[in-house]
Amino acid sequence: MTLTIGAFLFLFILYFLGQGTETSASTSNSNQAPIRKPSSSKAKLIGDRPPVRRFNLNNVTITADPIENQEAVLILTPMARFYQEYWDNLMKLDYPHKLISLGFILPKNKEGNAATAALQAQVTKTQTGSLKDRFRSVVIERQDFDPPIISQDESERHKMANQKARRASMSRARNSLLFTTLGVDTSWVLWLDADIVETPSSLIQDLASHNKPLIVPNCYQRYIDPETGKPAERPYDFNSWQDSPTAQEIASKMDPNDIILEGYREMATYRSLMAYMADQEDEKHLEVPLDGVGGTALLVKADVHRDGAMFPPFSFYHLIETEGFAKMARRLGWAATGLPNYKVRIHAKISHALRGALLLTQPCL
Amino acid sequence: MTLTIGAFLFLFILYFLGQGTETSASTSNSNQAPIRKPSSSKAKLIGDRPPVRRFNLNNVTITADPIENQEAVLILTPMARFYQEYWDNLMKLDYPHKLISLGFILPKNKEGNAATAALQAQVTKTQTGSLKDRFRSVVIERQDFDPPIISQDESERHKMANQKARRASMSRARNSLLFTTLGVDTSWVLWLDADIVETPSSLIQDLASHNKPLIVPNCYQRYIDPETGKPAERPYDFNSWQDSPTAQEIASKMDPNDIILEGYREMATYRSLMAYMADQEDEKHLEVPLDGVGGTALLVKADVHRDGAMFPPFSFYHLIETEGFAKMARRLGWAATGLPNYKVRIHAKISHALRGALLLTQPCL
Repeated sequence: MTLTIGAFLFLFILYFLGQGTETSASTSNSNQAPIRKPSSSKAKLIGDRPPVRRFNLNNVTITADPIENQEAVLILTPMARFYQEYWDNLMKLDYPHKLISLGFILPKNKEGNAATAALQAQVTKTQTGSLKDRFRSVVIERQDFDPPIISQDESERHKMANQKARRASMSRARNSLLFTTLGVDTSWVLWLDADIVETPSSLIQDLASHNKPLIVPNCYQRYIDPETGKPAERPYDFNSWQDSPTAQEIASKMDPNDIILEGYREMATYRSLMAYMADQEDEKHLEVPLDGVGGTALLVKADVHRDGAMFPPFSFYHLIETEGFAKMARRLGWAATGLPNYKVRIHAKISHALRGALLLTQPCL
Repeated sequence: MTLTIGAFLFLFILYFLGQGTETSASTSNSNQAPIRKPSSSKAKLIGDRPPVRRFNLNNVTITADPIENQEAVLILTPMARFYQEYWDNLMKLDYPHKLISLGFILPKNKEGNAATAALQAQVTKTQTGSLKDRFRSVVIERQDFDPPIISQDESERHKMANQKARRASMSRARNSLLFTTLGVDTSWVLWLDADIVETPSSLIQDLASHNKPLIVPNCYQRYIDPETGKPAERPYDFNSWQDSPTAQEIASKMDPNDIILEGYREMATYRSLMAYMADQEDEKHLEVPLDGVGGTALLVKADVHRDGAMFPPFSFYHLIETEGFAKMARRLGWAATGLPNYKVRIHAKISHALRGALLLTQPCL
């Protein structure tokens, strides 16, 4: 049904990255360790230009046993603030780091500069540190605009309008990151928000073991219950849901450009939210079908994106961003799955309001 | 309005391409010429792993003067048959080849194998040949399915159904190619069909000089007029058009999954086709606004794709493939422009029927 990269893929790569710009690049190629056994091939040096470098890649597999099959994973994170706990959790993932590429996109404002500096420090430390910790590659992108400041004292209605603009902006950030980092040999894409600070270390292989096109764990938040004073947790992400006749009815009466937002009192959708389906801690791998997905943590087979599934920054069947992505994937023949009892956790300090302000925002649509 | 790659972009690249597969790769790094001046940076060799390689890219500009600004161009071509005339024309493009990356996708059937072999031979010859001819990089992808054989004796109605499946398949091929080859520093994407054999050598800079998000020249075909016996030419691509009230009316009555196809007698749209607007040979740079675009030759600012604009393999506002792409770009705020008097030419042997059979096909939707 879908196009995947074939068995007989050649990359002829000439290393001109950054050519024509004021680029500072390490060129100590003699330092590089051999990648694989030397080829007998056509690589020749002619003149002062780099030779043809030819990689003959086998079939890129996408299977339920990605470690056994040495499948490459791309972790993509839009980041407005750097949390050390995010990085620490990332480092603890026990999927082989040599198979993991990282991609980040950060806004180009003061806070984004600080986050970039903090991120770069950790990347440099990791990539020059212990061999087993090093990731395959890291790309850090910057957006070239200042996100607008969203006033806190606006009407609820206005907040919904902000929500649409914010999520359209997030969509563009996700698309920009995705389109520039997805490689020929990527098998899986893990979308992981910058405020996700706690996941099982086996997150990638656990999710992949279900062998689903799109799969999303349940996002929770730890907090101290003010009544009991004891640690507790609450559901956080309301974008993973099963559709309802009510939501369909609302959509049918909407202007084509309008979107349905989840979690607003004035727009009760009566969708079944995965957030409230967690009830069997011992059935961690229980699957439920989903129509909308959130992006706090979301594992996607790379073929779904290669087919064209992206994050619509516009109303797509009255859905936007990750929810619109699930709908677009469905239109391409790929269904979404949720794991209500498999939990990941967002930073305890994030409130919904703060999160809105932290996410990459931009005046558009 | 859009996200572009910021000024402060770091790539930490570890060369593990193809790791874990039976890969044959040239590893004679000592053969590589320096890319830029050596960095003072953090590149260190620790153990037997490649060091961190860090590229500090400047702003990626997208301007009307791409040669002056050394802007990288990605030429993407879905290819079912190799035409030497296509390659010869490509070689004659006088945009600096060192700024051009090439991407191809070919079906994995017998004809695709032959085309891949012919293409590889030319790529190898070029990339080991004269310095000025060499391209920056070349990626060749293979699809892993056999395209179905479309019977020639089916009803006209059935042919329209085939057309939808064929164009859905083409969309997936284009998306797969786009998502895996668009780089962090790509400024422009030129979509160029494998049967385009004649363009001005200044095609890229001519189109870019208009500084438009999407711009499309007029695709013609040379032939011998059977009545006069003399060389003549005729318009070929009917996917570049201005919308009409009739087409809007047709769309409003359609099932959401149905698409409007151009050039079918039973579906007269009365759209204004750019194919028939060519009349002033001396006004080569005359611009017209377009609502749909064809993909025989199509220059796109990379930011349009990075925003998320792809080729919908499903009905998108009753449009599909390149026409759906134009609509999606418009939804993202990017308008399409046509140059009716600026001509490119398709291979003389291609008939519309043959072209349909040649293009990458797949049973889907």
